Amino acid sequence: MTDADSDRRSYPIVQVRGNTAREVDDQLAVEEPLEIRLGYTDPRKGRTHRSVSITMRTPGHDTALALGFLYSESIVRRIEDVASVDTSRANVIRLELHESARFDPQRLERHFYTTSSCGVCGKASLETLSLGGFDALPGLSTPVSAQRLRALPAQLRDVQPLFAATGGNHGVALFDREGRVEFGMEDVGRHNAMDKLIGTLLQQRRLPLADHGILVSGRASFELLQKALSAGCPLLAAVGAPSSLAVELAQEFNITLVGFLGAERFNVYHGGDSIRYDD
Amino acid sequence: MTDADSDRRSYPIVQVRGNTAREVDDQLAVEEPLEIRLGYTDPRKGRTHRSVSITMRTPGHDTALALGFLYSESIVRRIEDVASVDTSRANVIRLELHESARFDPQRLERHFYTTSSCGVCGKASLETLSLGGFDALPGLSTPVSAQRLRALPAQLRDVQPLFAATGGNHGVALFDREGRVEFGMEDVGRHNAMDKLIGTLLQQRRLPLADHGILVSGRASFELLQKALSAGCPLLAAVGAPSSLAVELAQEFNITLVGFLGAERFNVYHGGDSIRYDD
Repeated sequence: MTDADSDRRSYPIVQVRGNTAREVDDQLAVEEPLEIRLGYTDPRKGRTHRSVSITMRTPGHDTALALGFLYSESIVRRIEDVASVDTSRANVIRLELHESARFDPQRLERHFYTTSSCGVCGKASLETLSLGGFDALPGLSTPVSAQRLRALPAQLRDVQPLFAATGGNHGVALFDREGRVEFGMEDVGRHNAMDKLIGTLLQQRRLPLADHGILVSGRASFELLQKALSAGCPLLAAVGAPSSLAVELAQEFNITLVGFLGAERFNVYHGGDSIRYDD
Repeated sequence: MTDADSDRRSYPIVQVRGNTAREVDDQLAVEEPLEIRLGYTDPRKGRTHRSVSITMRTPGHDTALALGFLYSESIVRRIEDVASVDTSRANVIRLELHESARFDPQRLERHFYTTSSCGVCGKASLETLSLGGFDALPGLSTPVSAQRLRALPAQLRDVQPLFAATGGNHGVALFDREGRVEFGMEDVGRHNAMDKLIGTLLQQRRLPLADHGILVSGRASFELLQKALSAGCPLLAAVGAPSSLAVELAQEFNITLVGFLGAERFNVYHGGDSIRYDD
């Protein structure tokens, strides 16, 4: 893993057991701001540079994070749209889009106008999402087995070294139809971990996904489903609960949605016919 | 609790135990967008109305949520700044500020320019935060006992009816120096639950806090510490882990920060002298 040392930091703390206190050193997940600056050609103004996002994130995989964010926002559509990435300044990443990149600067205006403290990113309702040009997904080509799904959370722990050290962050992982975890990403922010995963897949030219699923360590919110949809992911499995809007998005865009996934049990909120129970 | 029925919704799901599946109805925490629209007098443009935020939230306590958000952003400084609140349209709340409200519209510009999918809200670094006019807090007037802190999580469950029903949301609660929980708020978003709590305290004319603490059900992020600071809260206790930046903010602004709080143990990341271990 890149930046293995920049994602955690040691702090002196007081550890209390019952009424007894002692001083120890403790590792914490690092949280720092990352500013994403974008260079692009505006049809009216010519070459333009502007800050498009500041997100609190765990350092590491910053390029993947920025790419995944821009892909989920439909600002970057393929890796060839990106001419250069500059990470020379701490906590600032600069991406230059190619002249040829088809990109509507109005997306940014809309983004700025409506964005808030939660990551709705201008797509505040399912109606707007539908208008955003997303079609319902075709679904998995072959059902995945319940048994293999239940074996996933144990594998998630294997790709969460930061969580093992700090207990203070979220994990996401890509898995295939056979229930094998390929790789994972971690961050103090759930949406960032997902952006890092999607950005990595973009770099690997593997988007849109067809027969892979994404596992998330926490709850399944609207925002995570929206990002899964943008990546064409037909199956999202969460260790925690989904929200109402996450389920409605899963229904409308045919994403198989699994929640409360554990070694013994899980719930299916949409797409039950993508899962088989017979092996 | 207001809106007791609008914060959860029943969905038909497939419940899987081992390899056996059955259809049941399940309750989920509702997640819906809330647009906050603000009316104010711009020195140059006169009376102005604009959308200042869209957040994905659990319906209920929308007025408290909007007030807490605007207070944390230093847009509303006292409840008297608000002339009227209109919640007649679903998922839209309109607040009119008094002509006399001292409010710098540039705060909104800065907010829009830098806001992103994480809630940094234009204050992306501790440096900017310090410039925002916040002073270090004086600390609790009397230490709180470790034993009473350890008894808090059990009380949090009592004020989390939505979590009891859905398992899919965050809770925050206000507690006093004797370790008594006064009231709690819940939401699918941690920052929203905190805004609802702070907005309620603003309505009750109890801000800034002096001798109360806030308990949060999950992790302590930079954003939650920033909101606690804006409310003058001298003690934040989290059931989960803090991030590095949360600890640094706690150190700089003297907020006692407790993490991994459970019935048997907890960690103190800053402000150990505000806790006593002798009863």
